Amino acid sequence: MRALPFTAVTINDRFWAPRQKTNSEATIPHELTQCETTGRVDNFAKAAGLMSGNFEGIFFNDSDVHKWVEAASYTLWTHPNPAWEAELDAVIAKIAASQQSDGYLNTYFTLVEPTKRWQNLGMMHELYCAGHLFEAGVAHYQATGKQTLLDVACRFADLIDRTFGFDKRDGLPGHEGIELALVKLARVTGEPRYMALAEYFVTRRGHSPSVFEKELENPDLPGGLGAYQHHFTRDGKFEGHYAQAHLPIQEQRECVGHAVRAMYLYSGAADIAYETGDTAITNALEALWQNVGKRLYITGGVGPSGHNEGFTRDYELPNFSAYAETCASIGLIFWAHRMFLLREDSRFVDVLETALYNGALSGISLDGTGFFYQNPLASHGDRQRHEWFGCACCPPNIARLLASVGQYIYAESDEGLYVNLYVGSTADAIAARNVPVRLTQETDYPWAGDVTLTITPARPVPFTLNLRIPGWCDQFEVRINGEADNSQLSAAGYLSITREWCAGDRVELQLSMPVVRVHAHPLVRENLGRSALRRGPIVYCFEEADNPDGTFQTLSLANNNNGLETTFDSDLLGGVTVIRGTGSVLNDTEWEDNLYLTAPTAKQIDVTAIPYYAWCNRGTGKMAVWVF
Amino acid sequence: MRALPFTAVTINDRFWAPRQKTNSEATIPHELTQCETTGRVDNFAKAAGLMSGNFEGIFFNDSDVHKWVEAASYTLWTHPNPAWEAELDAVIAKIAASQQSDGYLNTYFTLVEPTKRWQNLGMMHELYCAGHLFEAGVAHYQATGKQTLLDVACRFADLIDRTFGFDKRDGLPGHEGIELALVKLARVTGEPRYMALAEYFVTRRGHSPSVFEKELENPDLPGGLGAYQHHFTRDGKFEGHYAQAHLPIQEQRECVGHAVRAMYLYSGAADIAYETGDTAITNALEALWQNVGKRLYITGGVGPSGHNEGFTRDYELPNFSAYAETCASIGLIFWAHRMFLLREDSRFVDVLETALYNGALSGISLDGTGFFYQNPLASHGDRQRHEWFGCACCPPNIARLLASVGQYIYAESDEGLYVNLYVGSTADAIAARNVPVRLTQETDYPWAGDVTLTITPARPVPFTLNLRIPGWCDQFEVRINGEADNSQLSAAGYLSITREWCAGDRVELQLSMPVVRVHAHPLVRENLGRSALRRGPIVYCFEEADNPDGTFQTLSLANNNNGLETTFDSDLLGGVTVIRGTGSVLNDTEWEDNLYLTAPTAKQIDVTAIPYYAWCNRGTGKMAVWVF
Repeated sequence: MRALPFTAVTINDRFWAPRQKTNSEATIPHELTQCETTGRVDNFAKAAGLMSGNFEGIFFNDSDVHKWVEAASYTLWTHPNPAWEAELDAVIAKIAASQQSDGYLNTYFTLVEPTKRWQNLGMMHELYCAGHLFEAGVAHYQATGKQTLLDVACRFADLIDRTFGFDKRDGLPGHEGIELALVKLARVTGEPRYMALAEYFVTRRGHSPSVFEKELENPDLPGGLGAYQHHFTRDGKFEGHYAQAHLPIQEQRECVGHAVRAMYLYSGAADIAYETGDTAITNALEALWQNVGKRLYITGGVGPSGHNEGFTRDYELPNFSAYAETCASIGLIFWAHRMFLLREDSRFVDVLETALYNGALSGISLDGTGFFYQNPLASHGDRQRHEWFGCACCPPNIARLLASVGQYIYAESDEGLYVNLYVGSTADAIAARNVPVRLTQETDYPWAGDVTLTITPARPVPFTLNLRIPGWCDQFEVRINGEADNSQLSAAGYLSITREWCAGDRVELQLSMPVVRVHAHPLVRENLGRSALRRGPIVYCFEEADNPDGTFQTLSLANNNNGLETTFDSDLLGGVTVIRGTGSVLNDTEWEDNLYLTAPTAKQIDVTAIPYYAWCNRGTGKMAVWVF
Repeated sequence: MRALPFTAVTINDRFWAPRQKTNSEATIPHELTQCETTGRVDNFAKAAGLMSGNFEGIFFNDSDVHKWVEAASYTLWTHPNPAWEAELDAVIAKIAASQQSDGYLNTYFTLVEPTKRWQNLGMMHELYCAGHLFEAGVAHYQATGKQTLLDVACRFADLIDRTFGFDKRDGLPGHEGIELALVKLARVTGEPRYMALAEYFVTRRGHSPSVFEKELENPDLPGGLGAYQHHFTRDGKFEGHYAQAHLPIQEQRECVGHAVRAMYLYSGAADIAYETGDTAITNALEALWQNVGKRLYITGGVGPSGHNEGFTRDYELPNFSAYAETCASIGLIFWAHRMFLLREDSRFVDVLETALYNGALSGISLDGTGFFYQNPLASHGDRQRHEWFGCACCPPNIARLLASVGQYIYAESDEGLYVNLYVGSTADAIAARNVPVRLTQETDYPWAGDVTLTITPARPVPFTLNLRIPGWCDQFEVRINGEADNSQLSAAGYLSITREWCAGDRVELQLSMPVVRVHAHPLVRENLGRSALRRGPIVYCFEEADNPDGTFQTLSLANNNNGLETTFDSDLLGGVTVIRGTGSVLNDTEWEDNLYLTAPTAKQIDVTAIPYYAWCNRGTGKMAVWVF
């Protein structure tokens, strides 16, 4: 199973294509400006000796630039622009110039603590930043064909490979990410050392004695011991959970610690399991997937707690205080995609789709220049979007996701093609190992469930077309060239149509997409008695802008099971389907002097729900996903 | 307005009389045994030089013995018992023997830090323990006529009066209680110095410079600075809220800090306002009462947080983690009673009654020997009653409340008599300033709302009989000598019947007592969408013992507005009216592998609710007051 890469897919729908345009025209320039004005780009020039001055900002700021380069590279593929290509090349030139003669590349250590490389792997993010450099190098090469940054990445990867390994120095990233990056680098270069190094990082982790436990004994640690001890010890003893370093990956069964780290580790581990067929890792990932299924916001957010930016306990999913970092939902998309490739099962794509359309997409404003780091599911009106953050991981992460979303739509195996996401697009695949096939998909998804696929193989060819029937969909119909098809839904969640496909074959899929009220597990305390509105993959919320009295705390739709209407409003929030109906709220006035009442009265009000991803685009205001 | 004292009232109903009997026969002996086996009684013997050995236990353990003496004294009045009177006298003899030649009495300081008296008023509870000694001395005198302990109390009060005051040394109790105790002592002895000292403690509090702020500067503080700083400073600066020492009482508007301390202060302040007519204090107490009305559990519990054993914010009333200390509900009863005496309004008695029948009474087991310190409104099954506590304030506090509950039933003013609680009893009052009246009350309250009062004045006499119509009661009827009476309900919540009363006059009151579903203010987050069952003054709960599947988290009575039936079950929990009906719970099984479902199914179940006060008398188990 292989995903069709972003270079094989052109999105032309009215949902994602405008987002990719905004990403290209607003987000990418905005983020470069931020990287420039905050000294992030200059750090490379300074490390290269091209300008004078001290390192500015947080020690892992390089990674933001790398992620921006990755995002900008994808964007150059979807929206070629010579002026921007020159801008990108100029940034890459500074990154390349900052590389040390032995391949090392990290502006913080080069400028601030040059003698202390690799001494604080747990907290100082050198390997994490390296991973983002590798991903940037691969993306730049794939998008432009230029090897400038890829060569830089390989030189650094070679240094890391010379330095760390089972028979070399013991080392691990405190913040994962380099694992999946090395897999990308190995695949694009064909260099098996990079894959072996990725496997080393994945499988060394969690074994005793811990790399991190040893680092904690160093009183002269670069960056200092304080934060390290805070995250990696409890009651004075080493505890690796924060960075998933508590157990070998094969023995892990519970999603723990910092959520972004966890998602990146599980993604890298899934890559390794895919490459090696290691069933112990696969079984562990299946167990972790089962577990994340008890720790997942309806939006696809993960990691409820700000304390560790990560996981807590099963079913602990508070709404107002939900951390649900944008990067964590993006990481969940990475992991889910790799689980699909490993297991060929649509249940992983269900979660990918949920996170993509909700908990990740909420992380960026409609105009492309406002960001959420946290994605709560309810707000007292005290939340706002920010143009940037001191710790700016999320903005370039969502930019690279949007620019490369094409890679999640289709996949191909030797036996057939997979349509995982319904996005108006064209894609070029290979069927039956050697026959080029063009797929054309027309749909107004996610606002409608009608999808038309046109199959154009270079010559008639038998293969299986696997259409994902989303987990949210209870009713669907499919027609092939106008005739009803009676293919059965597979256990893996696909409608698999095997036939000889000829040019112009037309598959029409109708996914029934009613508004449904979703209930949460009874152990999710804050949602007891409540439900959330969902239609297709879109989770809805009530926002003060549409519901001026904003009394969402008591809002009830209990008497309105059948009275919710949907309307596509092209003028609202970039074009969204809204849900309207009548609800009821308690009468505020009678509560002024009463703490308890035996017969509180309610008043009927008209309410409007909007897609969750679009909230907080009209100033601050109260918001709620879960209502009574 | 004067309350009829416990000595003027004999309870003979089937609710409180059996509890007073159990209190006398089980609780009082049990608590003495606990005080003995934990060294609490021996501490007095040691301080008196009657035995050798070190001080044992916590520094304020004297207060537990004082409270036990108070409780035992009341009990000797209701249940005379020469053997027990001798036991009590023996304990009192040890207390008296421990008194120092100058009147000082505190075994911790006498035995452990004899040179450090009065140096840590904020945390070491010398004045608090003194207050409980005074209350014990007064109760013992009232119940038995003996002055042994009263004299001890007066000698100590005289020392405190010589020591502290506006023109003497500056001092205040960190834990209040001595204020209301000095008022009792002043009233029983007629000594104005005690009243003046109480007024000093009430009115000095909260003024700057603070006694406590000065103590915090003492590096050699007895007991140490750690706990003091924890409770009395924030960010290194003095903050008096924990002990209500942040503002002068006249300026206080918000219930803050440690709840028991707050209740005792407000009680003492109400006593002073009653004595002095100080309207600034009265106005402050009215504002504080308004405020506690936003911080009051439906059970009459106050102080939701274990962190400060006290108050947090308006409407913050979590159920599972409710601290709601037994002592705090008892303190609320003290305060409410004094507010009634001060303001002559039944709204205070409504709260008194709620706390008495629910949040205070839940603090003791039906057999009289198991106690709650905390009184949560929901439990996962992890709560149990304890026979005693290291910090044992609650057990003797509930014992003294039960033994003296008679004092809350009736009151008399120059114009008339007040019936505040409906409790089968006889009482001797004085009407129209000089005519003795015997009141006989027959009722099966709280299980029924029918009350028959027989009025027996020594001679026919005109006065007003004020019958409290409880705040929970929407419908009532009254008949006098068999004829309907059309007296109107006053703004103060009384049905005031003015006539010439003759011996044998019979007043029949019928209070309609349906089961009602009570809803909480929408800002009480945990109760959103839920309601609690109440009948008359009794708040109900669902307990696992009666509802074996214990799925209270999803229990809904939404479809059962009219199907709740009440039955008095004399064999259950000492005889209680239970509420039975059908409810529904979500089907657990379908949630095993699902975090979210669009159409969860519910199953109908039979449910039984019992009085909240009676929970956790059949082993541990889940419990919930608020259900959907």
